[in-house]
Amino acid sequence: MRFSGLRSVSVFVCMVMLLAGSVCLSHAGEYYSGKPAKYVFLFIGDGMGIAQKMSTEAITGKKLVFEEFPVQGITTTQANNRFIVGSAAAATAMSSGQITNIGMIGMAPDGKHVKTIAEMARDKGHKVGIVSSVSIDHATPAAFYAHVPKRSQYHYIDHALAASKFDYFAGGGLKDPKGTRKGIESRGNAFKSIKKAGYKIASNRKDFEKLSKKSGKVLTYNEWLQDSGATPYEIDRRAQDISLAEFTAKGIALLDNPEGFFMMVEGGKIDWACHANDAKAAVMDTIAFNNAVKEAVAFYKKHPNDTLIVVTGDHETGGMTLGFAGTKYETHFDILAAQNASFKKFTQEVMEPFKKSASGKNTFEDLKPEITKYFGLKFEGDPKQNLLVLKPFEVAKLKEAFMQSMAGHLIKNTSPQAAILYGSYDPLVVAVTHIINNKAGLAWTSFKHTGTPVVTSAMGVGAESFKNHYHQSEIAKKIMAVMGITPAVSVASK
Amino acid sequence: MRFSGLRSVSVFVCMVMLLAGSVCLSHAGEYYSGKPAKYVFLFIGDGMGIAQKMSTEAITGKKLVFEEFPVQGITTTQANNRFIVGSAAAATAMSSGQITNIGMIGMAPDGKHVKTIAEMARDKGHKVGIVSSVSIDHATPAAFYAHVPKRSQYHYIDHALAASKFDYFAGGGLKDPKGTRKGIESRGNAFKSIKKAGYKIASNRKDFEKLSKKSGKVLTYNEWLQDSGATPYEIDRRAQDISLAEFTAKGIALLDNPEGFFMMVEGGKIDWACHANDAKAAVMDTIAFNNAVKEAVAFYKKHPNDTLIVVTGDHETGGMTLGFAGTKYETHFDILAAQNASFKKFTQEVMEPFKKSASGKNTFEDLKPEITKYFGLKFEGDPKQNLLVLKPFEVAKLKEAFMQSMAGHLIKNTSPQAAILYGSYDPLVVAVTHIINNKAGLAWTSFKHTGTPVVTSAMGVGAESFKNHYHQSEIAKKIMAVMGITPAVSVASK
Repeated sequence: MRFSGLRSVSVFVCMVMLLAGSVCLSHAGEYYSGKPAKYVFLFIGDGMGIAQKMSTEAITGKKLVFEEFPVQGITTTQANNRFIVGSAAAATAMSSGQITNIGMIGMAPDGKHVKTIAEMARDKGHKVGIVSSVSIDHATPAAFYAHVPKRSQYHYIDHALAASKFDYFAGGGLKDPKGTRKGIESRGNAFKSIKKAGYKIASNRKDFEKLSKKSGKVLTYNEWLQDSGATPYEIDRRAQDISLAEFTAKGIALLDNPEGFFMMVEGGKIDWACHANDAKAAVMDTIAFNNAVKEAVAFYKKHPNDTLIVVTGDHETGGMTLGFAGTKYETHFDILAAQNASFKKFTQEVMEPFKKSASGKNTFEDLKPEITKYFGLKFEGDPKQNLLVLKPFEVAKLKEAFMQSMAGHLIKNTSPQAAILYGSYDPLVVAVTHIINNKAGLAWTSFKHTGTPVVTSAMGVGAESFKNHYHQSEIAKKIMAVMGITPAVSVASK
Repeated sequence: MRFSGLRSVSVFVCMVMLLAGSVCLSHAGEYYSGKPAKYVFLFIGDGMGIAQKMSTEAITGKKLVFEEFPVQGITTTQANNRFIVGSAAAATAMSSGQITNIGMIGMAPDGKHVKTIAEMARDKGHKVGIVSSVSIDHATPAAFYAHVPKRSQYHYIDHALAASKFDYFAGGGLKDPKGTRKGIESRGNAFKSIKKAGYKIASNRKDFEKLSKKSGKVLTYNEWLQDSGATPYEIDRRAQDISLAEFTAKGIALLDNPEGFFMMVEGGKIDWACHANDAKAAVMDTIAFNNAVKEAVAFYKKHPNDTLIVVTGDHETGGMTLGFAGTKYETHFDILAAQNASFKKFTQEVMEPFKKSASGKNTFEDLKPEITKYFGLKFEGDPKQNLLVLKPFEVAKLKEAFMQSMAGHLIKNTSPQAAILYGSYDPLVVAVTHIINNKAGLAWTSFKHTGTPVVTSAMGVGAESFKNHYHQSEIAKKIMAVMGITPAVSVASK
């Protein structure tokens, strides 16, 4: 057999759809035919590929709870119109079984709305919870309750949340409650609509802790939203910030009822950390995600014959690997212990003031103690004695990046080499995380998502149906089968 | 939970062994308890991680047959004394269940010999076949029949082959039959010992095709051994060269008997292509490997109740991903159709004569038509119209690499930046494959193995036991269970 070549994305996607479709047609009853599960958890680690999980285990020396699940399967992630998927199309595939176009939320490529497993569960009389560490109207959570052609239509998504009749929304905030973004027609303050629809809103720890079954429908989010309406990176989280595990545990407590529930929990900042190529931040958010899964496992242990837990990623982000040309066969994961803040915290606390000269300090020499403080990298000492000591070629890289940072223009508009080196991030910050990651033996190929498949882990009722190799749209179909819901991929357009 | 850090490799490996051990102790009888399989195939794609498989599917637009197997599992690959495994320790783990040190073949870290599944099968009265596209004394095949502390002791491995009493060895040649390597004490010509042990030797297509059950024990290899005793890269294979699928089919024909057989087939050049970061060569060798698996699937269809097929990788090589910073969310896999030779063929046919000026041509201008001929990259035209047209910054990269190539010194002894850019390969050749790969949307992080887990696929008797997440040493234990063999990890040292 000789190389045939793939002439276009559409050929490939046709193949994906054909395969998905044929599996659907021929195996519809074969996914699962036992007693339906009453309690279903879908955990989505955004950007969490196999390397993100393995690096977390390697760095902490502890197994992730979902790696111990009895069933693992391989999940491909292509969108209808692009090989490398985005979170909107990926989440739509996983929420509805519909493979769709990049950026679309809860609809087919032709614009028809598709009913989601969350909506099907609600209509079946289940309670429904949606949790995310990023804004609750971000693409992944939105794809379970909204139907819009563009993921950036946050305002319409916020109003869809108000109209959803779901029981529990938790994690990050709303990005456009008032409808002030360009190209958006305001439908009024979404918070008012949410309250009018009967939701109790809790936006700080004190109010969060008071939430109980008596609260009725709930929207709760962390007080400190670090960036774009998201909860803080786990590495930056303070004691008063509510963790993803706490949001999950509260959800379980509120949703638990004899009719059952469906709950989707997203670890959204794994993706954001990987976009920025910050391995330590990604690892810490993967640990936070794992802690949230542990809450579901504790619930499962009480209801083993009625519970399904599925843990997956929507795509890989960053092209992360556990190996680097410069370190060859060696790895030194322990040096990441020295990093104590995310790239974002360093950007906000150090680089932004530096660029404005607000601190009165703005030379590379001034920056050195800050790099040491936040990342542990040292400018003095013997690199052979201490791996955190920077080598001359690494210092040269930092200086070059610092020059680019201080030039102040957006790197994405400069040379192709600069875009390859820094993406659209602050050059100095990326140079720092690349150097500490590379020293550890970790490396990245991209600042975007990749098309490398992810892993789906399953435990409980119907877990067996997740043991093979399938497109992410099959996850929705398998869950529907385990919940005893007849798949209904496309519904009439509103 | 806060970051705890992994202080040393040994801590991690202790954890791996502890987990592996505890699984072994508590689940020994749980791997499989049905009727033993009579026919067992273990296919090892050397260096074949999840990205190698996905890129093959993306580029060809066809599914690999083992992706359609009903069971997939995740397999971690750490060695006893290093996080990133090598082929010797990986193959020893998979052949015996013993986690061992880097470079060791068929023995525990303390030097004790460990009995392999191939030897257990032989002692049970099964026929045994070992097939590889690289030399048959290379680490992966050797770990099924030899017991030496260093994988480079090819001469001793060759004599172990002669003494193995296995039935079928096929693929590449022997690397040190006479024992001429440094530090080796010759035990005489291994070919003589092999013949004396009753093996029929077939070293060309004509003799290969004559092989039948009447031939008795067989050692067969391809006439053209392209590099280090290996069969040619699939992309370079001529009609007269015997394919991995043909070696596998012949093995099935010779081994098929009512008492059963065990057969290990290695796709060894996937790894070699990935070390050199040559995606097209890796993809073609993955196709060749897939074609070999298809022969086993055809056999399975005749004996579905007696056959187990397991397909795995021993580790990932190169840190390959389907995404690149320069191409962002886009991929252009179709441009790889233009590449028609491996990095090795180009090195042998073009770069080596260039360096010696044997062709009378040795300027970068002279090289341009050769790059176009072998890889399809063009130096004239509009990059926006034709993706194969090189951009100015790419031409600059090639010129810099050409200068390094012609300087003639080994790149591994130069600056850290050069080692990161080119590994220990010819700089120009690596620069060419990197550019064509990157244009396609594929990228690499290393010239060595990585520690990213691989996938194991299983079909047939006992396949269910491969559906979870396990260290590669568990593969041996699961196969033993399915074959009805009591695990005996360590045996007395000879």
